[in-house]
Amino acid sequence: MINYNYGTGEWKNWILEETAFNKNTLGKCESIMCLANGYMGVRSATEESYIKETRNCFVAGTFNKASKYEVTELPNVADVLNMAITINGEDFTLTEGEIRHYSRRMNLKQGELSRDIIWVSPKGDEVAFKFRRVVSMKQLHTIAQSVSMKALNKDLQISLYSSIDGKVTNEGAQHYTIESVRFYEHKLLQLVETTTQSGIDFVVNTTHTFYKDHAPFMPGQVMASGVRSIGCHYTLTLEKGQDLTLEKVSSIHTSRDQEWDKPDYQLDDLKKASMTYLKEEAAKGYRGILNESAHYWEKHIWDRYSIDIQGNADYDSLAVRFAIYHINSMTPRHDNRMNIAAKGLSGPGYKGHYFWDTEIFVLPFFTFSNQDVARSLLEYRYLSLKGAHDKAKANGYEGAQFPWESAWLDDGEVTPEWGGQDPISGEMVKIWSGFIEQHITADIAYATWQYYQVTQDQDFMDRYGYELIFDTAKFWASRLEWNNDAQVYHINDVVGPDEYKEHIDNNAFTNYLAHWNMELAIEYYDTVKANNMDLFKKLNKKLDLEATYQRWKDRLDKVYLPQPNEDNIIPQNDTYLGLKEIDLTKYKAQDNVGSLFKDYTLKQVNQMKVSKQADVMMLFYLLEDRFDQALKQINFDYYEPLTLHDSSLSLAIHAILANDLNHPEMAYTLFRKATEIDMGTNMQTSDHGIHMAAQGGLWQSMISGFGGMRMLGGRLLIHPRLPKHWDRLVYPIYWKGNRLDITVTHQEVKVVNVTMKDPEIAITICGKDYVLKEELTVQIDAE
Amino acid sequence: MINYNYGTGEWKNWILEETAFNKNTLGKCESIMCLANGYMGVRSATEESYIKETRNCFVAGTFNKASKYEVTELPNVADVLNMAITINGEDFTLTEGEIRHYSRRMNLKQGELSRDIIWVSPKGDEVAFKFRRVVSMKQLHTIAQSVSMKALNKDLQISLYSSIDGKVTNEGAQHYTIESVRFYEHKLLQLVETTTQSGIDFVVNTTHTFYKDHAPFMPGQVMASGVRSIGCHYTLTLEKGQDLTLEKVSSIHTSRDQEWDKPDYQLDDLKKASMTYLKEEAAKGYRGILNESAHYWEKHIWDRYSIDIQGNADYDSLAVRFAIYHINSMTPRHDNRMNIAAKGLSGPGYKGHYFWDTEIFVLPFFTFSNQDVARSLLEYRYLSLKGAHDKAKANGYEGAQFPWESAWLDDGEVTPEWGGQDPISGEMVKIWSGFIEQHITADIAYATWQYYQVTQDQDFMDRYGYELIFDTAKFWASRLEWNNDAQVYHINDVVGPDEYKEHIDNNAFTNYLAHWNMELAIEYYDTVKANNMDLFKKLNKKLDLEATYQRWKDRLDKVYLPQPNEDNIIPQNDTYLGLKEIDLTKYKAQDNVGSLFKDYTLKQVNQMKVSKQADVMMLFYLLEDRFDQALKQINFDYYEPLTLHDSSLSLAIHAILANDLNHPEMAYTLFRKATEIDMGTNMQTSDHGIHMAAQGGLWQSMISGFGGMRMLGGRLLIHPRLPKHWDRLVYPIYWKGNRLDITVTHQEVKVVNVTMKDPEIAITICGKDYVLKEELTVQIDAE
Repeated sequence: MINYNYGTGEWKNWILEETAFNKNTLGKCESIMCLANGYMGVRSATEESYIKETRNCFVAGTFNKASKYEVTELPNVADVLNMAITINGEDFTLTEGEIRHYSRRMNLKQGELSRDIIWVSPKGDEVAFKFRRVVSMKQLHTIAQSVSMKALNKDLQISLYSSIDGKVTNEGAQHYTIESVRFYEHKLLQLVETTTQSGIDFVVNTTHTFYKDHAPFMPGQVMASGVRSIGCHYTLTLEKGQDLTLEKVSSIHTSRDQEWDKPDYQLDDLKKASMTYLKEEAAKGYRGILNESAHYWEKHIWDRYSIDIQGNADYDSLAVRFAIYHINSMTPRHDNRMNIAAKGLSGPGYKGHYFWDTEIFVLPFFTFSNQDVARSLLEYRYLSLKGAHDKAKANGYEGAQFPWESAWLDDGEVTPEWGGQDPISGEMVKIWSGFIEQHITADIAYATWQYYQVTQDQDFMDRYGYELIFDTAKFWASRLEWNNDAQVYHINDVVGPDEYKEHIDNNAFTNYLAHWNMELAIEYYDTVKANNMDLFKKLNKKLDLEATYQRWKDRLDKVYLPQPNEDNIIPQNDTYLGLKEIDLTKYKAQDNVGSLFKDYTLKQVNQMKVSKQADVMMLFYLLEDRFDQALKQINFDYYEPLTLHDSSLSLAIHAILANDLNHPEMAYTLFRKATEIDMGTNMQTSDHGIHMAAQGGLWQSMISGFGGMRMLGGRLLIHPRLPKHWDRLVYPIYWKGNRLDITVTHQEVKVVNVTMKDPEIAITICGKDYVLKEELTVQIDAE
Repeated sequence: MINYNYGTGEWKNWILEETAFNKNTLGKCESIMCLANGYMGVRSATEESYIKETRNCFVAGTFNKASKYEVTELPNVADVLNMAITINGEDFTLTEGEIRHYSRRMNLKQGELSRDIIWVSPKGDEVAFKFRRVVSMKQLHTIAQSVSMKALNKDLQISLYSSIDGKVTNEGAQHYTIESVRFYEHKLLQLVETTTQSGIDFVVNTTHTFYKDHAPFMPGQVMASGVRSIGCHYTLTLEKGQDLTLEKVSSIHTSRDQEWDKPDYQLDDLKKASMTYLKEEAAKGYRGILNESAHYWEKHIWDRYSIDIQGNADYDSLAVRFAIYHINSMTPRHDNRMNIAAKGLSGPGYKGHYFWDTEIFVLPFFTFSNQDVARSLLEYRYLSLKGAHDKAKANGYEGAQFPWESAWLDDGEVTPEWGGQDPISGEMVKIWSGFIEQHITADIAYATWQYYQVTQDQDFMDRYGYELIFDTAKFWASRLEWNNDAQVYHINDVVGPDEYKEHIDNNAFTNYLAHWNMELAIEYYDTVKANNMDLFKKLNKKLDLEATYQRWKDRLDKVYLPQPNEDNIIPQNDTYLGLKEIDLTKYKAQDNVGSLFKDYTLKQVNQMKVSKQADVMMLFYLLEDRFDQALKQINFDYYEPLTLHDSSLSLAIHAILANDLNHPEMAYTLFRKATEIDMGTNMQTSDHGIHMAAQGGLWQSMISGFGGMRMLGGRLLIHPRLPKHWDRLVYPIYWKGNRLDITVTHQEVKVVNVTMKDPEIAITICGKDYVLKEELTVQIDAE
């Protein structure tokens, strides 16, 4: 029911289409066609309501904790999309009558959602509907809808109820009290609601404009306020052949918006300003709002990040655009107090929380593409250091222990303590990640380092970066546990990236990254002390650096780094290799993520040799120069068959490694599977929202995988391996302020420095070192 | 779509039927077929879900205030009714496929809801469904469902999801945090939720039992806990001709239940006890639970309150049973800390609050029928005196000023301060009732007096009744305003029963009732002082009675009681008669309550000579011996045409007065209209719940109207006037502990003292005094 080939000409490989209505799989397109602009995300529920819909609107960063039993989450904002349409007395709903034509489309290039339907009511009234919708990328508070109806075979009595509906909840949790609902100037609707715990005011406005046969027109209007809602009933007659267009323009502002989050904030000021804003936006009309937004997409996203694949690559082109669309629309680029949620702003899954998904999966896109946004995302971590300090302290550690899940700056750890019931035993399942999935602290340090290497943003490092590196390394030094028998430091009782193994000792990924983090801190200590004494003094005072440095030095070489065993397998942790194996054929074969839990409890899975996701492979990817190709190959062959890829973080990393190991077909197969995590034809993939890490991973498997682009030890590497059916891949990266356009074919690599900030750039292509001036072309030897 | 003639034989005039499914009018039968037992009310939403459903379950007295902006309300309990049924992969829903047969019925006698459907799925699978449901009148915590499906033309793959769903809200307001969801013994589901402000724990349990062709049977079962819910997926095959029955038995307990609301309460004890309770109930099976409940209805309600109408009276018989059904099922007879809500337990309207609707409209039924319940309801007012004292004090008055709307005992006034928007101006509408609709204080005194007169319950009076009379009269004495010009006491700036007149001075009803209240207090003061010095001393100390008595004496004769003007019209208030008249034809003609507000704002309506409901007529009814027939007739003829009966409290009172004035045809027309307030064929009457006052009013118009039964000055009067098409009316009343069975025909009145507690009872029949011994028959003279 998903068609990837709708677009032609200018729109080729830009449009995702749903070709049939299915009331049972609404979640799919609600998520994958979600409209967002970083400020807010509006899940693509339809104007008319269906039983199984999920009607969500989230504004980034507006967390609220509904009760002591629940963790903080992004509250579902009052719904402005709804319209109940009645045609000659019958409700417009696709579960009744006949659908003569159906096409719902997401135009990724313009960020516009369209729905074209020819519907015949049960009584036989034939109507052509055109629904259009945009969330402006330019004007962050604007949602615009255009709804057209044409009477095809009869005159129609149309009645329509459209409202701001504050009755929506987060799956039953109501986060707001209604401050007021008002109706102004006979056309402006306003609902003001305030979150119950965090006290954030939301001002939601909407207004309606009608056209009949394109001429302005005013139908009968009756304002109707209800419980937690305010709306208007409209009634009109449409003669056969006439068409009606309704434009509904809505705005959302909150007291958490940077311009309002200040001491002299007054709700009344916000109400007034938001109404002025709405009027200005509405005056542009739907088309004006769309054009403004599309122009922004063109200029600031597609021109900047364009990826071009030639060959048999239509689907792949669409998939990478899909990834870039979601990465950009779900990232709160406007505010460094916010980050990228695991499901973006597209659904209730993971409650809008931030994970390592940002630093390891999505952030590299921005690090290599848009320094400002990448910096803002890292600044978020710096601004949330208090929670990290609190967490370390509460656990008896020093320095910054970043929460596994983060929300508002000072919330600290927000991972829920309990998940659902175990379906077999009926007992509550404890979520251990918040307690012992600790590698995120090193992941943040890694991303900070990566950002610095790629951008050379010294200002960032001086203000935030060094401190992040030192503070995280300080945590690790305190986290180490001396093992007297082995005379080394262990890191025990953790969860590594592979979450099917809880309470394990010496997770290879965690130990290596912790070691790396301390090692980097030692290097940067020396650098800062040598080059910037003021900063050194400041940080020394703040972090007790000199004493900590001594500890790093004392302990670094004694950190236990799991080594290959006699079979050259790096043990994922101390016990993994001794676990019992089971036949995974049926779980590997199934499309159904998590199918293992139909047969086993998590406790049992903990005792089985099976992995949820990349773990040792993650280590190979992040610290690629520490392990040789042969070792990587042996371990890939060992671990991949044990890995169910039940996490959306797994496939893309495996695709990259398969490419590194020169298995381009396998790499492509894994890449293709990764594209299907959200965009695939399975209609059950994305009910709770899209998988942001998977989208970030897709970009990486495209650019760092097939495109072969890496930063290694501060140096730019390009070692591409295109899938056979691709002829050419063109992609841009931003390297130390230079835009480099990279063209890869099966024969050669061409790099053009478009901006020429630096006259010369050191670069390694297919293993040989070069100096890039304006342009460089290198032939690829057959491997 | 409502059929009144379904029942035959034993069930004649006992069954209300809905004959067709309409997804747009779900609220009607959800309300009028609501199942309740006084402890809880379960709105009759269907097992499968529809967009426009209202899925409600309320437990009496469990108020919670969701936020500072909202008033306290009965929170919507986690839903246990839901079942999502899939037949060969297609959802069972009546909006799709074909409905071959449809009948939904409320059996008032047994309190059972039935739904029989033959449904053909879009693919052509034909299934016969039988849904049965009961809320036990005997076991107050029990809800039982039985769902049968028979495969008519093909083998069926059936899947079914049934849960306890805590995602339900009160129109978007979530009142609970989920304490836990659990699955026990592979078959018992438990959800525990706690109200956010009042901290009441709700323990909701459910269990499923399956039968295939009547033999116990276990389908495939997978437990699935979700956000705020826990349920089970079942899968099974039903061969053509086989039938499946699922019994779902559920229980609801709360920490507000009397047996748990105590200092040593432990939630764990409640959880365990409720699970034991559920198992015992489930062991009875659906049939056992239904029979137990039906037996209770038979023995404790229908035997006790039976009304029999002979003649052309099928509909009327059903209507009065409908009223008695709802009065009994919506009254929390088990707990004197609770009262009867304006919408009973049948919907969200008026938020479960208590109004004068109880004392003046519903309570007379119990006063004349079931002394224990009547006393419990009055004790509620005594127990809530603190709120009445607080309200008086806050307003600068003395004594007990009862809240216009009441909820939990110490909540005090809970009338919302603001209603919706004025549909024309868009401005917020202030609800003045909570501030200035003050007559309720006298109404409660009136009901107390009436109860005492009818029951002679001296124990009640000594413990509570006298104090209520004194305390309310004390309020009135302080409330009076001396008017120096007129040299009388006024009561200014009030709302009378007619709520279309706000901020008026000297509402006749209010002034007369206030006067009456003080007068009664003086009388009772003398009585108590003469007969019970201990009580007198106690109350004197508590209420400063002696000084208050002096005030009553000083002021009583100076209270301004509006007198008939030159046209013999008693002015409803000081300004009413001078207001401008408008043509009300179109608003009187319309079936649509509140249609006036499509054209006028409430402010404008305040300035027009139009009434919402009985006002001077209410006065005539309550103080009937203060006004002569001629005066009543003139005023009836004046006021009725100005009255839109936009309140459901209006028609029944007018029917009684029309009867008093010897217009039996008009009386019957008004009575008939009153029956239609909920039970009529208009499908939009009862979306927010049934109208309890209208049901109480119906009983009164039947017994005190047509049956002619009144208590006047402590004496029993019978002056019947049967509608022409009735031949005979038989009804019981309970008078001073005697059950009197009264048989009325057009020719005679026969009274039988069934219980003979008193050997002689003074009685006035059609204006003449008699002494009733065992039996008395009096011929009726033609009027």
